[in-house]
Amino acid sequence: MTAHPFHVYDTTLRDGAQQEGMNLSVADKLAIAPLLDELGVGFIEGGWPGAVPKDTEFFKRAAKELDLRNAELAAFGATRKPGVRAVDDPQVRALVDSEAPVVALVAKHDLRHAERALRTTGDENIAMIADTVSYLVREGRRVVVDAEHFFDGYRFDPAYTRAAVLAGFEAGAEVVALCDTNGGMVPAWVSDIVHEIRELVGPDAILGMHAHNDSGCAVANTLAAVEAGARHIQGTVNGYGERTGNADLLAVVANLELKYGHAVLATDGERPGGLPELTRIAHAISEITNISPFARSPYVGASAFAHKAGLHASAIKVDPDLYQHIDPAQVGNDMRMLVSDMAGRASIELKGRELGFDLSGRAELLGRVTERVKDAEAHGYTYEAADASFELLLVEEIDGGRPQYFRVESWRTIVERSGSRGTPATAEATVKLHAGGERHVTTGEGNGPVNALDHALRQALIRVYPELEAFELIDFKVRILDSMHGTDAVTRVLIETADGQTSWSTVGVGPNLLEAAWEALTDSAIWGLRNRGVAPR
Amino acid sequence: MTAHPFHVYDTTLRDGAQQEGMNLSVADKLAIAPLLDELGVGFIEGGWPGAVPKDTEFFKRAAKELDLRNAELAAFGATRKPGVRAVDDPQVRALVDSEAPVVALVAKHDLRHAERALRTTGDENIAMIADTVSYLVREGRRVVVDAEHFFDGYRFDPAYTRAAVLAGFEAGAEVVALCDTNGGMVPAWVSDIVHEIRELVGPDAILGMHAHNDSGCAVANTLAAVEAGARHIQGTVNGYGERTGNADLLAVVANLELKYGHAVLATDGERPGGLPELTRIAHAISEITNISPFARSPYVGASAFAHKAGLHASAIKVDPDLYQHIDPAQVGNDMRMLVSDMAGRASIELKGRELGFDLSGRAELLGRVTERVKDAEAHGYTYEAADASFELLLVEEIDGGRPQYFRVESWRTIVERSGSRGTPATAEATVKLHAGGERHVTTGEGNGPVNALDHALRQALIRVYPELEAFELIDFKVRILDSMHGTDAVTRVLIETADGQTSWSTVGVGPNLLEAAWEALTDSAIWGLRNRGVAPR
Repeated sequence: MTAHPFHVYDTTLRDGAQQEGMNLSVADKLAIAPLLDELGVGFIEGGWPGAVPKDTEFFKRAAKELDLRNAELAAFGATRKPGVRAVDDPQVRALVDSEAPVVALVAKHDLRHAERALRTTGDENIAMIADTVSYLVREGRRVVVDAEHFFDGYRFDPAYTRAAVLAGFEAGAEVVALCDTNGGMVPAWVSDIVHEIRELVGPDAILGMHAHNDSGCAVANTLAAVEAGARHIQGTVNGYGERTGNADLLAVVANLELKYGHAVLATDGERPGGLPELTRIAHAISEITNISPFARSPYVGASAFAHKAGLHASAIKVDPDLYQHIDPAQVGNDMRMLVSDMAGRASIELKGRELGFDLSGRAELLGRVTERVKDAEAHGYTYEAADASFELLLVEEIDGGRPQYFRVESWRTIVERSGSRGTPATAEATVKLHAGGERHVTTGEGNGPVNALDHALRQALIRVYPELEAFELIDFKVRILDSMHGTDAVTRVLIETADGQTSWSTVGVGPNLLEAAWEALTDSAIWGLRNRGVAPR
Repeated sequence: MTAHPFHVYDTTLRDGAQQEGMNLSVADKLAIAPLLDELGVGFIEGGWPGAVPKDTEFFKRAAKELDLRNAELAAFGATRKPGVRAVDDPQVRALVDSEAPVVALVAKHDLRHAERALRTTGDENIAMIADTVSYLVREGRRVVVDAEHFFDGYRFDPAYTRAAVLAGFEAGAEVVALCDTNGGMVPAWVSDIVHEIRELVGPDAILGMHAHNDSGCAVANTLAAVEAGARHIQGTVNGYGERTGNADLLAVVANLELKYGHAVLATDGERPGGLPELTRIAHAISEITNISPFARSPYVGASAFAHKAGLHASAIKVDPDLYQHIDPAQVGNDMRMLVSDMAGRASIELKGRELGFDLSGRAELLGRVTERVKDAEAHGYTYEAADASFELLLVEEIDGGRPQYFRVESWRTIVERSGSRGTPATAEATVKLHAGGERHVTTGEGNGPVNALDHALRQALIRVYPELEAFELIDFKVRILDSMHGTDAVTRVLIETADGQTSWSTVGVGPNLLEAAWEALTDSAIWGLRNRGVAPR
């Protein structure tokens, strides 16, 4: 593409953190930055020192604690206030004090914003850009101008916006990043405007793109800008950000590397990094932000390479490349076959292989498992979201039964409320079971009957299997299924459990919600114990 | 744009249902179709009759039960098998038998797939397209060819793929929809290829676009195809679909209407519909699919117009248009400055009018109702799918309370199971309440605790209100909502009741499933009695 280096500029820690519900601590940011560095981004925007105390602290600690090999740290800030010198503006001074080698300077590029939000004139706004950039450059900083509201501004008053862009470059900015701050652009508009700016600034000036996803086109808008000559791209991991989010940097980078053939990620060659780590890093960052990963995310989502259509399963087995736009291993993801009610033997064999069971050549076993799955799915089970239950079914067919960790005698739940609307109800459950050669009778309470059952089961088992201490119920879904063959409706419960190392999902079905929940809860305990290699006691 | 009609073709019920974890019943599909029709799509693809028994049933029931005003129903199926006549292929025959006026015929457009997946020759594959299309056209059907793997096929062997496209049109297909089945295209590639096909087929042939989101560009790829001359677009509500999903039809349609100025949605002018209903319809469909809405969805997401207080807060208040790419009211969404809900006064006034309450000019009342709805929705209630509960809320605010048909003293449910897996559990409920001047203590049994509670409540009330005899609980949905403000998860229950004349839905929310169910059950009884004009006794 170009002899100039390509900039991958991550703003997860600053613009990504504007997402509704996200609240990153300094420790969170210090944990995310090394992952971004490992991925191979060139710049990590850490926050706004001087304006946000947490961010001032982040830069202080980052300088001491982070050992970045690929990325430079960037501090974000604004142009000086109207009517003061840059050197006299404490917020500009704080950018220098942060000691970040790169400064991203947000600067109005829409005349209406200069006048109405900053309450200044167009000329003073351009002077603010020029002064602040040249001051920072004199202080030895590399400056990226974030041309805020650039596209809307350009569509409103191209001459003013062009003057603002030129002011940044003339004052010494290394990059002017063209921002679709309100996120409403479509690729054709981006393409036209970036081409015009490219002509204005000449081939050597580095133009950047900062997109938001309000029209659902952030990734494509970024690609359109690169095609029109931008060579600095901004975005966030998992597309985090305010409103509909920023451009998903992972999808942009994967597209540039795999579709356009541009090697844009840096890696130091010593540690793993780059695209093959994309999925792992996306998920690791989700763990830190505590925002559930979106299963349908391009490239890195849990569903991104999951195939359901039974129709194609046999063909996929023979020729997976015909059914995938890329080999999932290129981004560290995996192909998965979903066992659904259209499942044939081929998809079950593939699923078994994924779980570590070689069923090839075992036609009779495979036939039995396929029949059981079909029968179970006809009764409301679904294994596509319950790998652990499917694995227990396989184990039963292969070993002639599942491990007998316990034998249930009975269980009971009671939920009651006295008084009128608004009085809370109480829930309790009693479980009687045999394990470790003894009978256990335990009662648990909870905010609902399933929660109470979980507590009672856990109390009974933990005496014999202390390994259960680490298990935690992290998700619980209920679905009422219509009657399938003129019988009554049945209830399906899906439960997800985690133990700090892995997580697993089980399913239960019954005419009664609590029967279904009980099945899923007990399967979860059995799978978890078996997975840890615990023998029945 | 063009004198020819533009086709908005929805495939939520067929391709969308391929999404991991989605399993739509016939009743779900029958509930979703009218919402799509209300939105104003031109085509609703209902499923694959003849191949999927549930879909055969859907078309049978749809013909009798649905009253569509804007949309035509489309049946999906495949070209005939190699080596048989179309008329002799029972799966092709089933498409005719479905009585859908439109048939979407999936046809291989990649030579490798014809050879390796169908195990036939390129020539036979083209004969299969021609025969099946012309047979269906002779049977009076409008035919859309879904040109499967079109883009990959074109990049591999353009001559073959061009011949396949021409075969479809020559046999009488009304549309050839170009499918990016593996989802790996980027807009520049789509643009080039669609331009080439447009030249091949001439200006009058209707080309379509069917995109998947594997590269994160499905919306932009669809727009690129429209710019290159496609005038039939396929997609799914909320971008549901296999892997990373299909093109999000809502974002595509909003972009076409608001960015490109094409009026693509049909509305019959009598009922509300079109873009201003976009958000409501997206969320109502989420309730039916039971898949949590993605907050960052373009246009319709809960966060799509949510601004985190900060940098721009005061400027946004003065000049919201400077900070939003569109007015959210255009798509029935709302700007939010804080984490709250979706309801605005306008939609509440409209909903009230729909239920027969004129709230215009009653600003103080409207303000109070809006506040209550906001507060309730922040706690997990949803009134979109529970008109009866919303009406009771309105009645409370207008009349100063709801009718006092009964006063609850207490309720209790017990569910228990003795013995091991396979033994059925039993459920019973006891209700104590006061009605008609007496205290009633009744116990009901059921196949689950909600069913038992319903029976007990009904037995207690029926002594005083024999009108309840006609009421029947016909649907029951449960949803576990993520914790919203750092508190515990809550459960939402939606109940639908019918009395032979009408049906109504109520909602309950609580930390405990049974509390939520009890609220929905009692609201259902109250609404039903009030609707029949029964006075409290």
